[in-house]
Amino acid sequence: MADKKYDYFFGRGSAEGNARMKDLLGGKGANLAEMTNLGIPVPPGFTISTEVCTYYYEKNKRYPEGLKEAVIGNMAKVEEIMGRKFGDSERPLLVSVRSGARASMPGMMDTVLNLGLNDETVKGMVKLSGNERFAYDSYRRFVQMYGDVVLGLKPESQDEEDPFEIVIEKKKREKGVKQDTELDAGDLKDLVAGFKGLIKERLGITFPEDPWEQLWGAIGAVFSSWHNQRAITYRKLNNIPEHWGTAVNVQAMVFGNMGDDSATGVAFTRDPSTGEKVFFGEFLINAQGEDVVAGTRTPQPLRKSDKKGGLPSLEELMPEIYKELEDVYKKLEAHYKDMQDIEFTIEQGRLWILQTRNGKRTVRAAIKIAVDMVKEGLIDEKTAVLRIDPDLLDTILHPTLDPKAERNVIARGLPASPGAAVGEVVFTADEAEAIVRDGKKVILVRIETSPEDIHGMHVSEGILTARGGMTSHAAVVARGMGKCCVSGCGDININYAEGVFTAGGTTVRRGDMITLDGTAGEVMVGAVPTVQPELSGDFAALMEWVDKFRRLRVRANADTPGDAGLARSFGAEGIGLCRTEHMFFDGDRIKAVREMILANDIEGRKGALAKLLPMQKGDFKEIFKEMKDLPVTIRLLDPPLHEFLPRTDVEIREAANDMGRAYEEIKSKTDSLMEFNPMLGHRGCRLGVTYPEIYEMQVKAIMEAACELTNEGYKIIPEIMVPLVSMVSELSFLKVHIKQVCKEVMDRYGVGIEYAIGTMIELPRAALIADKIAGEAEFFSFGTNDLTQTCFGLSRDDSGNFLPYYIEKGLLERDPFVAIDRSGVGALVKIGADKGRKVRPNMKLGICGEHGGEPSSVEFCHNLGLNYVSCSPYRVPVARLAAAHAALK
Amino acid sequence: MADKKYDYFFGRGSAEGNARMKDLLGGKGANLAEMTNLGIPVPPGFTISTEVCTYYYEKNKRYPEGLKEAVIGNMAKVEEIMGRKFGDSERPLLVSVRSGARASMPGMMDTVLNLGLNDETVKGMVKLSGNERFAYDSYRRFVQMYGDVVLGLKPESQDEEDPFEIVIEKKKREKGVKQDTELDAGDLKDLVAGFKGLIKERLGITFPEDPWEQLWGAIGAVFSSWHNQRAITYRKLNNIPEHWGTAVNVQAMVFGNMGDDSATGVAFTRDPSTGEKVFFGEFLINAQGEDVVAGTRTPQPLRKSDKKGGLPSLEELMPEIYKELEDVYKKLEAHYKDMQDIEFTIEQGRLWILQTRNGKRTVRAAIKIAVDMVKEGLIDEKTAVLRIDPDLLDTILHPTLDPKAERNVIARGLPASPGAAVGEVVFTADEAEAIVRDGKKVILVRIETSPEDIHGMHVSEGILTARGGMTSHAAVVARGMGKCCVSGCGDININYAEGVFTAGGTTVRRGDMITLDGTAGEVMVGAVPTVQPELSGDFAALMEWVDKFRRLRVRANADTPGDAGLARSFGAEGIGLCRTEHMFFDGDRIKAVREMILANDIEGRKGALAKLLPMQKGDFKEIFKEMKDLPVTIRLLDPPLHEFLPRTDVEIREAANDMGRAYEEIKSKTDSLMEFNPMLGHRGCRLGVTYPEIYEMQVKAIMEAACELTNEGYKIIPEIMVPLVSMVSELSFLKVHIKQVCKEVMDRYGVGIEYAIGTMIELPRAALIADKIAGEAEFFSFGTNDLTQTCFGLSRDDSGNFLPYYIEKGLLERDPFVAIDRSGVGALVKIGADKGRKVRPNMKLGICGEHGGEPSSVEFCHNLGLNYVSCSPYRVPVARLAAAHAALK
Repeated sequence: MADKKYDYFFGRGSAEGNARMKDLLGGKGANLAEMTNLGIPVPPGFTISTEVCTYYYEKNKRYPEGLKEAVIGNMAKVEEIMGRKFGDSERPLLVSVRSGARASMPGMMDTVLNLGLNDETVKGMVKLSGNERFAYDSYRRFVQMYGDVVLGLKPESQDEEDPFEIVIEKKKREKGVKQDTELDAGDLKDLVAGFKGLIKERLGITFPEDPWEQLWGAIGAVFSSWHNQRAITYRKLNNIPEHWGTAVNVQAMVFGNMGDDSATGVAFTRDPSTGEKVFFGEFLINAQGEDVVAGTRTPQPLRKSDKKGGLPSLEELMPEIYKELEDVYKKLEAHYKDMQDIEFTIEQGRLWILQTRNGKRTVRAAIKIAVDMVKEGLIDEKTAVLRIDPDLLDTILHPTLDPKAERNVIARGLPASPGAAVGEVVFTADEAEAIVRDGKKVILVRIETSPEDIHGMHVSEGILTARGGMTSHAAVVARGMGKCCVSGCGDININYAEGVFTAGGTTVRRGDMITLDGTAGEVMVGAVPTVQPELSGDFAALMEWVDKFRRLRVRANADTPGDAGLARSFGAEGIGLCRTEHMFFDGDRIKAVREMILANDIEGRKGALAKLLPMQKGDFKEIFKEMKDLPVTIRLLDPPLHEFLPRTDVEIREAANDMGRAYEEIKSKTDSLMEFNPMLGHRGCRLGVTYPEIYEMQVKAIMEAACELTNEGYKIIPEIMVPLVSMVSELSFLKVHIKQVCKEVMDRYGVGIEYAIGTMIELPRAALIADKIAGEAEFFSFGTNDLTQTCFGLSRDDSGNFLPYYIEKGLLERDPFVAIDRSGVGALVKIGADKGRKVRPNMKLGICGEHGGEPSSVEFCHNLGLNYVSCSPYRVPVARLAAAHAALK
Repeated sequence: MADKKYDYFFGRGSAEGNARMKDLLGGKGANLAEMTNLGIPVPPGFTISTEVCTYYYEKNKRYPEGLKEAVIGNMAKVEEIMGRKFGDSERPLLVSVRSGARASMPGMMDTVLNLGLNDETVKGMVKLSGNERFAYDSYRRFVQMYGDVVLGLKPESQDEEDPFEIVIEKKKREKGVKQDTELDAGDLKDLVAGFKGLIKERLGITFPEDPWEQLWGAIGAVFSSWHNQRAITYRKLNNIPEHWGTAVNVQAMVFGNMGDDSATGVAFTRDPSTGEKVFFGEFLINAQGEDVVAGTRTPQPLRKSDKKGGLPSLEELMPEIYKELEDVYKKLEAHYKDMQDIEFTIEQGRLWILQTRNGKRTVRAAIKIAVDMVKEGLIDEKTAVLRIDPDLLDTILHPTLDPKAERNVIARGLPASPGAAVGEVVFTADEAEAIVRDGKKVILVRIETSPEDIHGMHVSEGILTARGGMTSHAAVVARGMGKCCVSGCGDININYAEGVFTAGGTTVRRGDMITLDGTAGEVMVGAVPTVQPELSGDFAALMEWVDKFRRLRVRANADTPGDAGLARSFGAEGIGLCRTEHMFFDGDRIKAVREMILANDIEGRKGALAKLLPMQKGDFKEIFKEMKDLPVTIRLLDPPLHEFLPRTDVEIREAANDMGRAYEEIKSKTDSLMEFNPMLGHRGCRLGVTYPEIYEMQVKAIMEAACELTNEGYKIIPEIMVPLVSMVSELSFLKVHIKQVCKEVMDRYGVGIEYAIGTMIELPRAALIADKIAGEAEFFSFGTNDLTQTCFGLSRDDSGNFLPYYIEKGLLERDPFVAIDRSGVGALVKIGADKGRKVRPNMKLGICGEHGGEPSSVEFCHNLGLNYVSCSPYRVPVARLAAAHAALK
């Protein structure tokens, strides 16, 4: 065994390991070796390999022969480089002992810092730092950590406080102080003694003063922590094999608080907020990392040109070190080919790099950095595309609040639909319409919204609701419209009657100005200034590459010409879902719709439908024009009819008056249309089957619009979509009617239009018999919203009562209405797609619904080989990017 | 071609064909040949084979060489046997010309009767029958039929009346009569002339007087009718190949109205109403078949011992013929091995058998006949079992109305749950309870029922609702309880306030006696006497064989000890579904349930649950006792909590009073529990996850009951079933709690019980991830009711608005809530069963829900290899029989 190598040194520009030796050295060890080899001044140390861990467990916690000698030899090299000595009372070397497995297991295993301190060496630390308090604070921290991690002095039950903390608390009471920082060097010295006494008393062990005994204790503790309960559970959940084992890294400690020639800081290789290619960061003289984090002292800039206040920059104070740091930055960016976030310490005039990692950045910065790096030849376009997280892209597409503006937040709700909105408070949809007509902007505030509020939501800048989750009506519709929405804002109390809402102590009246931040879920009084998104420049360049790589097409869900135009500007390649029912609520139309529904016979219904025809046709013409040359999928009427009906007694009376009919008659008809489970009720193509004249009117409107525009020279590609099909007979039946109307209209206009008739696959049965349905349907659009509802037996509107609890308890990872559930809903989509393609190999397949703009769902659709996803206009760039990611992965 | 045989003679005891030659002779021709060969006196004739049909179409409506001669030869043989001559004016032979394909195509092709009549031969018929009116009536019918079928004189459009009928109408107006029967021989003679004139005028054709021309015309018309539109559509729908073709049967006509030595009648080889082994039937002297049907003359009995009135029997009037008929009956039963329904005619002292077929019979008769025939050695037990239609068995299991009693039917609704019920009218569930407590019987009359009415339904004899379909709440619950129910009875108008309902002109008040017939869907005033079902004797013998053949086990859905006992008496082999929520409605329990739901915190909830524990435990003990030694599957609480809450303002006030809490508080809590789609809401195991204490109480009640009975010496097999699982995490989470409670209870009692924990598979997702769920569940019960709802996206409660229309329009063959939908829901059950068994090969699989007692669904379950079906107690014998059928098929 002795000839086998178990230890891997790193330091002073060369290492025995490298980045490819992760299996043996763990992630951390391999990375330290790699950085050392790059010439980065990493504090020296060595890694004990994962094979020792395996040996340690196999051989009942013994170490392989020769390891002891190897550790001694490595320590000597570290001492030499650092100019310190382990256990020395003049210039003591302190080390850290850390775990490091092949896969990252953050916080799961143990670490010991400041190892090497004892009653003698602490004196050396006092001398070196000139800071007695610091030395004893380090000492007491080490004893505490070692007592816990290595010796195992822990609370005996969950209820017991940490025993070391009890000693500290006692000390503070004695001294009459509240903060740990108020304890002086003498107090800390007392604590060290107190801790050691506690260990002796509770464990019967004398705290080891011998640094070597400390070192072996810590190495053993780190290996043992591979088998602690937390780590075992973590490995199970993350599929990390038991046999991998962990490595142990022993590394010299360096200190930024060893006098005025010492410092500690953080540096970014580019500006993480704007992405600008400038060396950027902060530091503190004579300080430790935690001082930077604590924010008690104002950090100084690295670059001279970054100086804001009067504090000198590193560039000025330590020009040599600054140069060295710049050199490190160049090496690291060249090596990792990404913007780095670097932690550094200067110890008595020597620069040490403690850590480097890919730096966090804003989405805007991420795009600029990726595009710049392509220009610099550092990365290729694929890499650039993969650098941008589609989940975050959304945030830069909406107008946002000026980050510099002041915010007076009075309530918080759910960030239901991103963006910012400013407007006057209104409490009803009608009010919203009326005030907007006067040229003002409004925020619609409701306890919750219903389909009746749609016309008000359309004209509002944003929506605020007191009830309802991330997938409530308000949230879903607002996201669809790309409107800012804060939902489920329990902080506010709405009083419709008086036209006010209160939030905490603030009362907001109808007409008062408020601001919503849909990204943060905040409600503010007054008008906070906003900034518009910038979609050209780097963004445009990136999206061009995105489109080059993706296979999946991206369409938009758009019901209005405005949405269609917006979608096109975001790069939509067609409309995948144009809901015709939203058009039914606008203005006076709802009256004709109600007349149609409440008609006593087919003649009455046809009369009302005749009034609606020109309105629908007008809508379609505008939408078609916006989307010329691109396909537009129009879904025929879907929701249950009672959604269009008046609800309250007052509304019913009004409607009866309008129609010149008796209240009782309207009331009884309305009641008879109510359903126990409207989601599973008389809707979708079931309406088309029982009232064929409704779909006939809609198809007529679509085809007349298409024919008239064709005559004007437009190329129109209408796709007529039948919703909620569960039996092939429904589609066969309706198709006959639809084709007949299409033919009649085209003959009348003397125009030939290539239209398609397809169906939603949004019920489990439709997916299961998709082969039969494909015999009739020319395309499928998977309605994953409804498919999720029926597959799970889960009403989106009602799920708020328990789904959050499921997620909180870990029974469910993500809301299935947000990210597609692959094993259930996804399985149905796959069955449907496979069966459909078996019968009609070139069938166009897509999904519409909320999932179409969610990156992991987009990836799923790409993997299934669907042709397109369709999502709300603002999500189009997200879906494009996600599609490129999926194709590149 | 001339040497090929195209014609097959039958007559006088021997035939050229036989029963195995269906392909060539068609079903009818083969059967006529077979009967002839058996020595049955069938009127002679011949069959022109299906090959001629093929030839006829291939050769542009020409016949093969030699056919003409063959027909002439065959006709000569017929003439000889009948002692008549074709075209003779003294003793004319008349023939029928009928189609006959391989597969039965009833009513699809053409037939010509009385062929051979003309102005000369009609005179012969006058002489032979001594009945001029009859002869001319036959003649005018022949001309009319020939004119239509062979010559093609039909109405020119759908709106036009039949042209022959116009001539008849004119004649009747002339004579000032209303009925065809009021026309005399002279009038009929005029009609013949009129018809011929019409044919000449409209078609330019002279009606053929030559019988041979008539014959070839009719043969050609029958072959041509193979290609009429009706027949083509029928073949498409029934998968009958075009190339099969039809045969043509030419057969001598015989007449039962040729004097007092002629007669016509119908005979059954056993009594079709009781099944008794007696020769049974009726006849009329000097009459035709239609006279028997018309009922204008009272038919006479065949047997002397059947004589009721003063009319002589055939046995007395024509002892020789009677003997011959008895001989025929013995031959036919021995041959067909089933009870036969025989049509016979006696023409001038000669017996002719026109038709024999398996006779229709009541279910009771069917059972007796099958059991008797086994005893007689005529059939084996398998055949006997297969003879009984499971779909009809249900009708003899319930008490029924005495068929002899008078009925005063005032309204008709849907036959929602079979059986009969007599009782006083009540309009609320509470009223029902109160009156039953006084020892009276009641019928609960509601506009529709809801779960709140359960306690009233339990105590009622039957349920009558004005609204709701075959699968409405009332219908489903009533069937589950085995209670008679008439639902959707739109004929009645209920006025709760005045405590009356009206039906047509009748007013029925609270307390009035009414009778329901749930099998016919009838409502009667007054008490109609009922008869109890007889389940021993033949029924018991049959069911013993049934149990020998079936593989599938049959359990019952039973929620009460009464239902459990009933189920056991019907042969249930366990309880497959014991719903715990029905127990929650009984008596004072609902108060504790409401207290539990409306509790403000977990303590309040636990307090209320503690009150429920002893009640649930008591229920379980009684049910367990009834089902000792058999498994009992208990489903934990399933429905959404708001089903248990008060609804109306009055009820809410009352509940608030009971609990000593404010109305507003209870009202607001009740409102907050309302859901948009309760079917997809906070129910099933979602309740168990969010309120673990509810399931804990239920499991405690189950296990305490089981332990206490075990200590008393019973063997108890509890199976704890978790409803509405859609994620495996739900089951894992709940299982921990359930097992813990089970262990705690068993430890406390010092008893070990083999219990199982399983789950409903009632959501598409559960079926799709059944492999994962099987890792946790010890058994699956497929809840096909909910699976149908979610698979189709179809609410059972709301489907009444459109499903009937679907069925009417032919978009759907059968209500999927009645017979399992094989391609959708069935596919999910199959996926679930396969995936479950893959992980747990010996897993117990069953279905519960309405489908468990429906024969075609039972067959499906058998084919899938499930272990059992579970159905309502009254359906248990049906399911047993259906399971045997499935196994034997």
